[in-house]
Amino acid sequence: MGITIIGYIAGTLTTFASLPQLLKSLKERNMENISLAFVVTFTTGLTLWLIYGILRNDYPIIVFNILSLMFWIPITYLKIKDVLENKGSKSELIT
Amino acid sequence: MGITIIGYIAGTLTTFASLPQLLKSLKERNMENISLAFVVTFTTGLTLWLIYGILRNDYPIIVFNILSLMFWIPITYLKIKDVLENKGSKSELIT
Repeated sequence: MGITIIGYIAGTLTTFASLPQLLKSLKERNMENISLAFVVTFTTGLTLWLIYGILRNDYPIIVFNILSLMFWIPITYLKIKDVLENKGSKSELIT
Repeated sequence: MGITIIGYIAGTLTTFASLPQLLKSLKERNMENISLAFVVTFTTGLTLWLIYGILRNDYPIIVFNILSLMFWIPITYLKIKDVLENKGSKSELIT
């Protein structure tokens, strides 16, 4: 029992950790220090985790990853928008 | 078999996604747009995932979370250093 609870606390922390990042990004609309490669790869990975959870009928994996995607899809959108609007920082596309 | 491979690809993506973020943060030494609450909570969650993996003897969870911590402990260190050095942004401590 104790071990399962640790897993749920861990999942809750790594999932809801992203909420303050989303709120900060929405408020400041500045994504300069956030890596494009990070947000795109991370969001792609979360999507694959969701597919994995669905295929395995694993509800905790499904729930945690839907929640995570609710935070990371908008963060990724804000980052891509930021890169496209700041033509000066095209080097971003490779970092 | 196919499903397990999806899990490994998902884990590889969500883990190594953080490498370009670490490299960017090390290069630019500017963490302004990254939320303190995010990095601290995320790193704490990863540590709990590692403990969970050890208690369950689950090697993929152990390996992925050790790798993630190798990226997120330095990112968290850089962020805390940034907040402490920029006394002007004390509001960061709550966002």
